[in-house]
Amino acid sequence: MFIYSVTRIVKLQDIDAAGIVFFPKFLEYCHDAYFEYLMKSGIDLPTSIPSGEYILPLVHAEADFKGPLRFGDEIIVTIDNAIKKKSSYRVNYSVRKNDAQRTLCCVAQTVHAAISRTSFAPLKEVPMEIVRVLKME
Amino acid sequence: MFIYSVTRIVKLQDIDAAGIVFFPKFLEYCHDAYFEYLMKSGIDLPTSIPSGEYILPLVHAEADFKGPLRFGDEIIVTIDNAIKKKSSYRVNYSVRKNDAQRTLCCVAQTVHAAISRTSFAPLKEVPMEIVRVLKME
Amino acid sequence: MFIYSVTRIVKLQDIDAAGIVFFPKFLEYCHDAYFEYLMKSGIDLPTSIPSGEYILPLVHAEADFKGPLRFGDEIIVTIDNAIKKKSSYRVNYSVRKNDAQRTLCCVAQTVHAAISRTSFAPLKEVPMEIVRVLKME
Amino acid sequence: MFIYSVTRIVKLQDIDAAGIVFFPKFLEYCHDAYFEYLMKSGIDLPTSIPSGEYILPLVHAEADFKGPLRFGDEIIVTIDNAIKKKSSYRVNYSVRKNDAQRTLCCVAQTVHAAISRTSFAPLKEVPMEIVRVLKME
Repeated sequence: MFIYSVTRIVKLQDIDAAGIVFFPKFLEYCHDAYFEYLMKSGIDLPTSIPSGEYILPLVHAEADFKGPLRFGDEIIVTIDNAIKKKSSYRVNYSVRKNDAQRTLCCVAQTVHAAISRTSFAPLKEVPMEIVRVLKME
Repeated sequence: MFIYSVTRIVKLQDIDAAGIVFFPKFLEYCHDAYFEYLMKSGIDLPTSIPSGEYILPLVHAEADFKGPLRFGDEIIVTIDNAIKKKSSYRVNYSVRKNDAQRTLCCVAQTVHAAISRTSFAPLKEVPMEIVRVLKME
Repeated sequence: MFIYSVTRIVKLQDIDAAGIVFFPKFLEYCHDAYFEYLMKSGIDLPTSIPSGEYILPLVHAEADFKGPLRFGDEIIVTIDNAIKKKSSYRVNYSVRKNDAQRTLCCVAQTVHAAISRTSFAPLKEVPMEIVRVLKME
Repeated sequence: MFIYSVTRIVKLQDIDAAGIVFFPKFLEYCHDAYFEYLMKSGIDLPTSIPSGEYILPLVHAEADFKGPLRFGDEIIVTIDNAIKKKSSYRVNYSVRKNDAQRTLCCVAQTVHAAISRTSFAPLKEVPMEIVRVLKME
């Protein structure tokens, strides 16, 4: 069971002078999957970020790097699950090569706070539409 | 004679899987020099972009790539000069290695239109402060 | 008639502090389409770049910016055509919004030299497989 | 007491569609300070990464985001300290605004393994030159 999974190809420009994917790119891969999933699920981020009731800023991000990725590698970026706390939630990701062994290359997580867009005060709870979409019931 | 010149070191992450600087980065190097120069010259871009009278969007950019840059190369990015047309102006750049020969690696230019920030109508002329700072008299 | 066309969504991080796509990103969109097309057409770039007979470095790139793109915009990046010179070739691109009018946002081109990977000497001609794939006969 | 500190200005293109620095950029700021410091301290990374005895790949990175950064903000990126384990080490960073309060915006860390460049086997110990430069005695 997982929430969302997407394949992509490691691009020429994702690689650094060490010949492997530059580490913050892994977090970008995960965040891309997260935004793509929210938008496909009906969360209108281009509207809600500048003018919605609440925003969901990142308060923490981390990643363990298990193995290198190189130009042309086909990878699978997965949102494994999400866990709700009071007014924040954690999203867990994995990045695997699309090879026979599904080689694990990165495990990552992001933590998001749910706050008012205008006052920046924490919401009492993570908004219901986010709870539903990220299957945090 | 030139307008502004800045040195920088090519970073690990500026390099792509071919082992050289990914080409749009050259334009970013030039644009960084341009913004840095404007801001050092008293043009308050963080204020003027969201709330000033006019904006100066790029309408054209181009670059000729003369030689590769690699991780660790020290480079000199120069704003060579700027040329005013009626309500737009062209900025010419060069990127050289900081070696004995000052090896030329890239020649680039950007063209900027001067337009009203609210109506997007072209200004009658490039604003005087920009003419002055970019020595286009 | 065109060579290749791909849709993509403008990402959160493609936007700059002016609220629009940062201009070198347009060239990255075009280059992504070019690499994706070559690889889908059987040109094994992850192998040929580090160990093939020839490489195809960019010697020129340019873009005209016709209109801004914003976060969430769905765009169509098209390789319109490619034109062969002796030992180099030019690729023409357009970037349009995927709206009813197919609003044109950017016209761009890249010029690539065909050179030996080891000696860097220009090839006598653009390699046949590239001529074929980019329909430059 | 700290190891190294560098100021920089938040660039136009570091900002995303939410109007603030895109979160992986914070890790890039920290990594830039780390590489800059190593190179200024005599560690020749452009030579050692492709052909040295050992490499120091990241195995973990994390960041806590305490407050947003915007275009034009002057920031101070500090390598606070580094802690040696057997064959790996952790580097601690902070990112502050260069304002009167030195507002803390981000606390981050990266963990690096010391491994043979050819066999990828862990070294018995973190190399002495790295221990010395990062003041991990």
